[in-house]
Amino acid sequence: MPVRLSKTVRLMAEPKENVLMEKIVSLCKRRGFIFQSSEIYGGINGFWDYGPLGAELKRNVKELWWNTMTRRRDDVVGLEATIIMSPEIWKASGHVDTFTDPMVDCKTCKGRFRADQTGEIPCPQKPSKMVSECHGEKTAPRAFNLMFQTYVGPVQDASAIAYLRPETAQAIFAQFKNVLETSRQKLPFGIAQVGKAFRNEVTPRNFTFRSREFEQMELEFFIKPDEVVEAISGRVATAAEVSGGNIQHPTSNIQHPMGAAPGPRPPTLDPRPDWGWEAWHKYWVEERIVFYEGIGLGRSTLEEYWQKPEELAHYARACVDILFKFPFGTQELEGIAARSDFDLSQHERCSGKSMGVFDEELRAAWSKLDDAKKEALSRRYTEARLKYLTKMGVDQAAAEQEAKEDAAGLAKGQYIPHVIEPSAGVDRLILALICNAYSEDQMPDEKGKLETRVVLKFHPRVAPVKVGVMPLLKNKPDLVAKARQLRDLLRPHMNVFYDDAGAIGRRYRRQDEAGTPFCVTVDFETLEGAKDGALAGQKDTVTLRHRDDGRQDRVKIAELLPLLLEKIR
Amino acid sequence: MPVRLSKTVRLMAEPKENVLMEKIVSLCKRRGFIFQSSEIYGGINGFWDYGPLGAELKRNVKELWWNTMTRRRDDVVGLEATIIMSPEIWKASGHVDTFTDPMVDCKTCKGRFRADQTGEIPCPQKPSKMVSECHGEKTAPRAFNLMFQTYVGPVQDASAIAYLRPETAQAIFAQFKNVLETSRQKLPFGIAQVGKAFRNEVTPRNFTFRSREFEQMELEFFIKPDEVVEAISGRVATAAEVSGGNIQHPTSNIQHPMGAAPGPRPPTLDPRPDWGWEAWHKYWVEERIVFYEGIGLGRSTLEEYWQKPEELAHYARACVDILFKFPFGTQELEGIAARSDFDLSQHERCSGKSMGVFDEELRAAWSKLDDAKKEALSRRYTEARLKYLTKMGVDQAAAEQEAKEDAAGLAKGQYIPHVIEPSAGVDRLILALICNAYSEDQMPDEKGKLETRVVLKFHPRVAPVKVGVMPLLKNKPDLVAKARQLRDLLRPHMNVFYDDAGAIGRRYRRQDEAGTPFCVTVDFETLEGAKDGALAGQKDTVTLRHRDDGRQDRVKIAELLPLLLEKIR
Repeated sequence: MPVRLSKTVRLMAEPKENVLMEKIVSLCKRRGFIFQSSEIYGGINGFWDYGPLGAELKRNVKELWWNTMTRRRDDVVGLEATIIMSPEIWKASGHVDTFTDPMVDCKTCKGRFRADQTGEIPCPQKPSKMVSECHGEKTAPRAFNLMFQTYVGPVQDASAIAYLRPETAQAIFAQFKNVLETSRQKLPFGIAQVGKAFRNEVTPRNFTFRSREFEQMELEFFIKPDEVVEAISGRVATAAEVSGGNIQHPTSNIQHPMGAAPGPRPPTLDPRPDWGWEAWHKYWVEERIVFYEGIGLGRSTLEEYWQKPEELAHYARACVDILFKFPFGTQELEGIAARSDFDLSQHERCSGKSMGVFDEELRAAWSKLDDAKKEALSRRYTEARLKYLTKMGVDQAAAEQEAKEDAAGLAKGQYIPHVIEPSAGVDRLILALICNAYSEDQMPDEKGKLETRVVLKFHPRVAPVKVGVMPLLKNKPDLVAKARQLRDLLRPHMNVFYDDAGAIGRRYRRQDEAGTPFCVTVDFETLEGAKDGALAGQKDTVTLRHRDDGRQDRVKIAELLPLLLEKIR
Repeated sequence: MPVRLSKTVRLMAEPKENVLMEKIVSLCKRRGFIFQSSEIYGGINGFWDYGPLGAELKRNVKELWWNTMTRRRDDVVGLEATIIMSPEIWKASGHVDTFTDPMVDCKTCKGRFRADQTGEIPCPQKPSKMVSECHGEKTAPRAFNLMFQTYVGPVQDASAIAYLRPETAQAIFAQFKNVLETSRQKLPFGIAQVGKAFRNEVTPRNFTFRSREFEQMELEFFIKPDEVVEAISGRVATAAEVSGGNIQHPTSNIQHPMGAAPGPRPPTLDPRPDWGWEAWHKYWVEERIVFYEGIGLGRSTLEEYWQKPEELAHYARACVDILFKFPFGTQELEGIAARSDFDLSQHERCSGKSMGVFDEELRAAWSKLDDAKKEALSRRYTEARLKYLTKMGVDQAAAEQEAKEDAAGLAKGQYIPHVIEPSAGVDRLILALICNAYSEDQMPDEKGKLETRVVLKFHPRVAPVKVGVMPLLKNKPDLVAKARQLRDLLRPHMNVFYDDAGAIGRRYRRQDEAGTPFCVTVDFETLEGAKDGALAGQKDTVTLRHRDDGRQDRVKIAELLPLLLEKIR
């Protein structure tokens, strides 16, 4: 995977200028993946609904993320917090003060425009000129907060203001201590959450890519500060020491009664106690890319972008963006940031509640360090805390005092955890999966004549429908009864679409467009047993038709379920 | 199941007055089921977060509902719409005008109070008196809308007002035609949705039961009007004709490679073409109760409350509430309403977009009816439409004209569908499951002395953790290695909690409190094979411990996974 040189190298094309993107948007509507929200009322800009196929696709992706990130691991637990939280949370996080776009108002036309886009937006009154060139008198740029605001309770005054969360992450920090105390986890461990977030984008664009209401899948993985790792392990591993495949999965000598274990594979890297933030950061970048591979986004469709020092937020140690090559440009799917102890520190300062942990291992290790080591680690820890405190406006003397006290906590086994944050957008991932799956090829129709076929080549794990079940003919009760039996056999285990309407070739094409990886057809051979030599005696067989190449196999019904399960899990 | 006489017979006790409820609230916090939102900032009234165990419980319930209501059926598809929609939707639904509580303001203390609760709320300035008795000058009651309001886009004026949805249902109506046209469904069919909704309750209460942010699971099941059913089938079935168990599941002659099909059972009732709204309404009441039974809420814990004619909304034909006996009173879990064609009619009138369907069966059937029948059905249809139109303020002459035109559509196979709406609250269901599962009993401790045990007897289908996996001792590498193998064997199929800390009896108790139905312990017999006669040769066995009665069985590892899968699905 090549490393991108600059985040802004690739310009985004508007969907209308992009034929492929137009086809995808059209397919999404036509097949019920994505509709405009409130379409019958003219829509509402920046909001999109998922239709029957889209809702299934989205559920599958969220379920796979949840299973991979929490249920398949010992060291991550889940959280489901509210969208409306105390506004104090957004003061602590900095969103109230700094989550803004600069806007100018035109006193003539009363329009409001992004200050950095006035050169690209036509004047509403004189569209021949851009806003920056027209004669309307403009205000100076003012900060416009991107959080949606509302009032909680019956009185609409300043004390009742609340916000729709602009990200899910902050709830994880706010509940860190509750989760730590109730979940029997010790550092390093993570808290995962999936849920809606809202940003009042001035210019929603690129279909569902930049919406005002969207869904996130975020993990906050809490780790020990490097000074603590070094005190305990004597050293801190470099990122270069982290490489894939060092786990020998121990299940090999237990016979698995259902064949291979389902789902994306469990972690291949075995974390070590000497991992500091660089190693953990690299680990999560690797884990997340493997996740994308596991749902059909191969490495060649992705790019890794390591933010440059000057691009990083002041508290961030590093941030990697995982980008996907959309038809409208290469754009971010997920950011994996090493956020130091900034978030928990902020909530500790703003809430007055301790966000620190007690680490028995550290306490025991510290007492065995020689004085030079204690001194060196304390100094480094003090410096890091001092940097944070002065950045947040604490005056120098107070900051020095507080940083020193923080470092004194190390001897008692106390510190504030650092965090690695893999943060993914669900909607843009869904769009990436659809763009990646979209394909046109030539396939023979009923009469053998080649025709253009639209097919969504979803990985079977995420495909909305796993299998189409069809009687060859609708007017043969035996075929229909058998097909319904098959449907009922498969349905408890996977999403099945039963279809008996129209020519079989048409039905296959409809499933191709929906991205259904398999179709099973009950035909006369199913009922009578095969007649030619090769299949003699193979009663109760069906046609298994493969989406990507149209290949058709003859499969025994008794073997069908395990065969399909192996493919879709 | 007894039919309740009145919805208000049972008074709600405040949780603080209720010892059992206090224990449940405390357990929810202590074990990480439910936390107060933004607790470190003093909380925010009416908002609750789900911790690790709560998030898993909630996911399981939502997943079971989704699978039961959509994936296991041919006739229901899913939708996932936005929380913020066009405000026109809430005008059409009536929420902008009528979704209000009457409030009075006190000009003296500036407080705002529910007009019907001033006799119960102490005056903020003189708490010895109630608001209704104090000397503060009150305004006349004014309507306070319960929808949370926000602004979309950069300008905060009246044209930018939008609302957080107070229910998920309306999105289903707004997208009805898009779904109909893309999903290959024909009436009768349903659209299901799970998602957050928001109501700015003046008095959130009873723990999570009445929150300001909550989640709903709603189905809108669209059916033919009775006149259409009669035109096609010649008759309309009565509700009494609907009774359970008339489906012969056709899978019996296909051998299931994994034993019984997992999950709540598929429908046991086979809908018939002559079902009108009464039959369909009864069908869904029955289906929903069976769902609750399938997740551990037996019929004896529920009550059915049929709303009386004077309690029904003007457009509703019938509404059944399914109530659960909470410690603080018997309260609604779900309402199943027959809502006529009100919702689609409203959106047709307000959007100007047709919400009608074309029904080839009706067109064909109508042409074969005799004139008297045509006349009678048209008259009934006209009357129903007229009732709706005049209720909505259309003047008599225009309404008569429009109703007549609507009835004329029947001959062309056109009409607006009616709807049955089973609408369930997720959070109150979670609370019901926890209350229902909460139990205290006496169990012997390590030394055989009886002690009080707290146990959550969740149905295994919804239990957050399905199995605890434990080595008997933490300091025996062979036991630990084998236990980890077992964990990795089971984990791809279910949520596993691995625990090696503390005495085994304590570990069992921790899982009891979390509601984990099974624990598997790797002990020395596992490694060495059993030594007594009865188990001779049974190497590779483990202890399977059952939560509810503490019973312990010896089970072969090779048999463990299928055995557990059968219990939890």
